[in-house]
Amino acid sequence: MADKLKFAVIGGGSWATAIAKMLCVNQEEICWYMRNENAIDHIKNFKHNPNYLSSVEFDTQKLLLTSNINEAVSYADYLIFAIPSAFLDGELAKITLPLQDKIIFSAIKGIVPETSLIVGEHFHVQYDIPYYNIGVITGPCHAEEVALERLSYLTIACSDADKAKFVAQNLSGNYIKSKISDDIIGTEYAAMLKNIYAIAAGIAHGLGYGDNFQSVIMSNAIREMKKFIRKVHKMKRNINDSAYLGDLLVTGYSVFSRNRMFGNMIGKGYTVKSAMMEMSMVAEGYYAVKSAYKLNQGYGAKTPIIDAVYQILYEGKEAKVVFKKLTDQLD
Amino acid sequence: MADKLKFAVIGGGSWATAIAKMLCVNQEEICWYMRNENAIDHIKNFKHNPNYLSSVEFDTQKLLLTSNINEAVSYADYLIFAIPSAFLDGELAKITLPLQDKIIFSAIKGIVPETSLIVGEHFHVQYDIPYYNIGVITGPCHAEEVALERLSYLTIACSDADKAKFVAQNLSGNYIKSKISDDIIGTEYAAMLKNIYAIAAGIAHGLGYGDNFQSVIMSNAIREMKKFIRKVHKMKRNINDSAYLGDLLVTGYSVFSRNRMFGNMIGKGYTVKSAMMEMSMVAEGYYAVKSAYKLNQGYGAKTPIIDAVYQILYEGKEAKVVFKKLTDQLD
Repeated sequence: MADKLKFAVIGGGSWATAIAKMLCVNQEEICWYMRNENAIDHIKNFKHNPNYLSSVEFDTQKLLLTSNINEAVSYADYLIFAIPSAFLDGELAKITLPLQDKIIFSAIKGIVPETSLIVGEHFHVQYDIPYYNIGVITGPCHAEEVALERLSYLTIACSDADKAKFVAQNLSGNYIKSKISDDIIGTEYAAMLKNIYAIAAGIAHGLGYGDNFQSVIMSNAIREMKKFIRKVHKMKRNINDSAYLGDLLVTGYSVFSRNRMFGNMIGKGYTVKSAMMEMSMVAEGYYAVKSAYKLNQGYGAKTPIIDAVYQILYEGKEAKVVFKKLTDQLD
Repeated sequence: MADKLKFAVIGGGSWATAIAKMLCVNQEEICWYMRNENAIDHIKNFKHNPNYLSSVEFDTQKLLLTSNINEAVSYADYLIFAIPSAFLDGELAKITLPLQDKIIFSAIKGIVPETSLIVGEHFHVQYDIPYYNIGVITGPCHAEEVALERLSYLTIACSDADKAKFVAQNLSGNYIKSKISDDIIGTEYAAMLKNIYAIAAGIAHGLGYGDNFQSVIMSNAIREMKKFIRKVHKMKRNINDSAYLGDLLVTGYSVFSRNRMFGNMIGKGYTVKSAMMEMSMVAEGYYAVKSAYKLNQGYGAKTPIIDAVYQILYEGKEAKVVFKKLTDQLD
């Protein structure tokens, strides 16, 4: 019976915390895995995640907290992964139970560095999960606004519409509206690419470009994203839907986006290394741009913004010079 | 000879001042009309417009300043109008010289209240100016960033490409890149509609909605804009070009936009009347939404955002209630 299917959230960060909060509205119990045992103890004792979205109060009766990922895998039918893509491979290596009969939803926005694959592809290729058992949870959604219970719209993508609907129902509530989509490849690439464009927006800001140029970057970015995704997986999609354009905007215009912050530091003259050391969190776009750039060597889409970010982050080219050239390629 | 064609700027506000600054880079002399004689004296004596973009220094040798609009009309081949649309009809009434042989470019974003027409249509219908002598200058461009010489992109639209090119050349410079377009109807409607969406963004902000919802509004707004403009004038256009999406974003995300500010006050509970009194400038979107709403009675495009703003501003409906309903129509 569908209503007996169980969820586990994998991850202890802000987005994982937001997803756990959303699920608790609709579920009697969920399993929640995180590495950090101190955080688990804190949640058990004080009902709040001490490190992320710490204002959110949990009904701990509903939480089966564990620092053993196999316990989560064993418990759940639906596994929702919400950890930085850079840590995914390491976490998956801990799993000793079979994943083949699980339904995997990714709330991760990025590329798995070890395989240069987006998360859905990674599960499909590395773990033989069929695509009809893989889904994507995407925004536009800052986790911080979920904590504040501010109205947010999610898109739940899966080629199996029933599974998308089931997850959508279980995330929805007073302040969450969810729609479903069958474009798991496109939504996941969009979520990955937008981080690159947020880095570009940050670099522009750091270099002293203003709001007029920012809007030109975003307007070019969505056209570039459309071309890129079309090469990866051609299907009918409206790139201006919230899952693509909305997600790009909520990140590209956010001063809190770590990708934008990272770009801003690069624009202000930090080296890539020192910008990364300065930030305690990983900027997903750093890995994404390498993968997107390499992929596009095969696709040949015209992607001047991705190319510019790649040249700055991986070829040691000067941001000021690269962006001066980029401005001639935008319109 | 093309290089002898002369320009006059009509208007003394910030956008007119920015356009005068851009033209002075490329022209030996321009005529600049504004009503305010004190401002003219100030510019003559101190090289700065005292009221708008007052940091901009003009080479007054290049300026033929006048408070007589007929002098500007008599002087110029190209008349660039940059006054609030609400004042256009009154200014045009002062003109006693024929306009038929003039080339008219509109840098006005809005509806002429007296005729409910966009500016290009107003000149065509009321003054018999053929469409090949009418053009549009559009952003995304905050005048304030032109003053700061921050890189900005303009789109110059005219069905006669030579005229569009000529104006584009004369506005371009180190920090201004101009492209041309043949979509004078679409670019002008976009510039008008974006003010309505900026009001909607402001109302949402005033009501306490956050950045997640803001990105959903913008993503729905561009889809709504596309449908609306398609009804007005169907042609091949990419709604994600800077003149449409970029212009929407630079206004919708700007905390300085007077349309957004106006909406914000409405969202916070001001009446329409008191919000208008509180602001010294007219919010163009206030007139635009009335006209767009009425027009769409004929077109029948699905425009839930325009409808919501209309109901709040003209039917006295409560913003909170209207937006609650609106959230169900967006995705």
